[in-house]
Amino acid sequence: MAKRVAVILSGCGVYDGSEIHEASAILVHLSRAGAKVQMFAPDTDQMHVVNHCDGKPTEEKRNVLQESARIARGEVTDLAKLDVSAFDAAIIPGGFGVAKNLSDFAVKNKDFTIQPHLEKLLKAFHKAGKPMGMCCVSPILAAKIVPGCELTVGHDKECEKWPYANTAGVFKEMGCKHVIKDVEEAHVDVKNKLVTTSAFMCNAPMHKVFDGIGVMVTETLKLA
Amino acid sequence: MAKRVAVILSGCGVYDGSEIHEASAILVHLSRAGAKVQMFAPDTDQMHVVNHCDGKPTEEKRNVLQESARIARGEVTDLAKLDVSAFDAAIIPGGFGVAKNLSDFAVKNKDFTIQPHLEKLLKAFHKAGKPMGMCCVSPILAAKIVPGCELTVGHDKECEKWPYANTAGVFKEMGCKHVIKDVEEAHVDVKNKLVTTSAFMCNAPMHKVFDGIGVMVTETLKLA
Repeated sequence: MAKRVAVILSGCGVYDGSEIHEASAILVHLSRAGAKVQMFAPDTDQMHVVNHCDGKPTEEKRNVLQESARIARGEVTDLAKLDVSAFDAAIIPGGFGVAKNLSDFAVKNKDFTIQPHLEKLLKAFHKAGKPMGMCCVSPILAAKIVPGCELTVGHDKECEKWPYANTAGVFKEMGCKHVIKDVEEAHVDVKNKLVTTSAFMCNAPMHKVFDGIGVMVTETLKLA
Repeated sequence: MAKRVAVILSGCGVYDGSEIHEASAILVHLSRAGAKVQMFAPDTDQMHVVNHCDGKPTEEKRNVLQESARIARGEVTDLAKLDVSAFDAAIIPGGFGVAKNLSDFAVKNKDFTIQPHLEKLLKAFHKAGKPMGMCCVSPILAAKIVPGCELTVGHDKECEKWPYANTAGVFKEMGCKHVIKDVEEAHVDVKNKLVTTSAFMCNAPMHKVFDGIGVMVTETLKLA
């Protein structure tokens, strides 16, 4: 029977929403695996809107659900309606939307909190033994939900190839174990059913990010 | 030597810009082939902004270049600066942005015109014998630039699987030849160096659209 996967979006665009290519890669790999996908996003304002040409915030207001609908081609449901019992797994692409709209990690670093309803949902997935796949910055959500879990954001030393590697340090401060992985790999925390891959945490060619996400999707579905 | 490819975007979102997954697939396949990619978009207002949840236009204004930057992760250049001599090929993803922001096809159907600067650029690519790859609705641009050319938008009879198949009739009215192809295939007009694939003109699983775009990219690079 087809695995039922909830994909949770946080807007549309790397600097204020879901990372577009990570979301797209997840959907391509899920489609190839024959999974049954439903997309969700919270019906709330974005923390802010970033002009993606210059990276600066604008005065605009945008809604996370409506912008996520750009990725979902209209087929996205309010996160408030996500029924965990109807799914075998959850997958969350990265992008700053995870740190700005699904949590306040972008502002509060390791003292961040997850948007309360999402926190409840992720705890329910975990408690039910249902796997969660995450990439780029979204593993921070797992670090909060599952104390002591194993995660990767790729490497842990900042350099040109790994510009966001200091996120690994945050995991350690939170009591989690960071596992070094290359961009085409994923780490599987079998005990906690968490699958993570670095994606655009790495300055890598697009197809390597795509392939790493493929491993993450495959391993997540295996655990479901 | 790496093939240099100009990818021309028209915003970010199927109903008022570039189709996100088509653009992403093009970039993944170009990356895997080792091509050198530069993205471009016109620095103009979108025809309108569509709420992708309900498909209706809103009162907002958005700029095509800034929204395209969401797909390009900031790395997009004003189309006014595209120097055809610096590229071996051009590829244009679909989405209603092609019919709304790059041309007025969405309003005028077969009597449409292409945005004048883009028309000049595409004619220059064609005159220089440089291949152009297009998918979904973007082949309409080729139909205008290259009279009598061969193109595909997939099938030519409207049905649930092919909801936009009547676009094939427009090609015929314009004196072009429509070639029937499935979603995982592309048509190559060798004489005119045009490569086209249906992409989301077909109601197909995401990975089939991805694979068809892969064929389009490969065949375009072969001709470059």
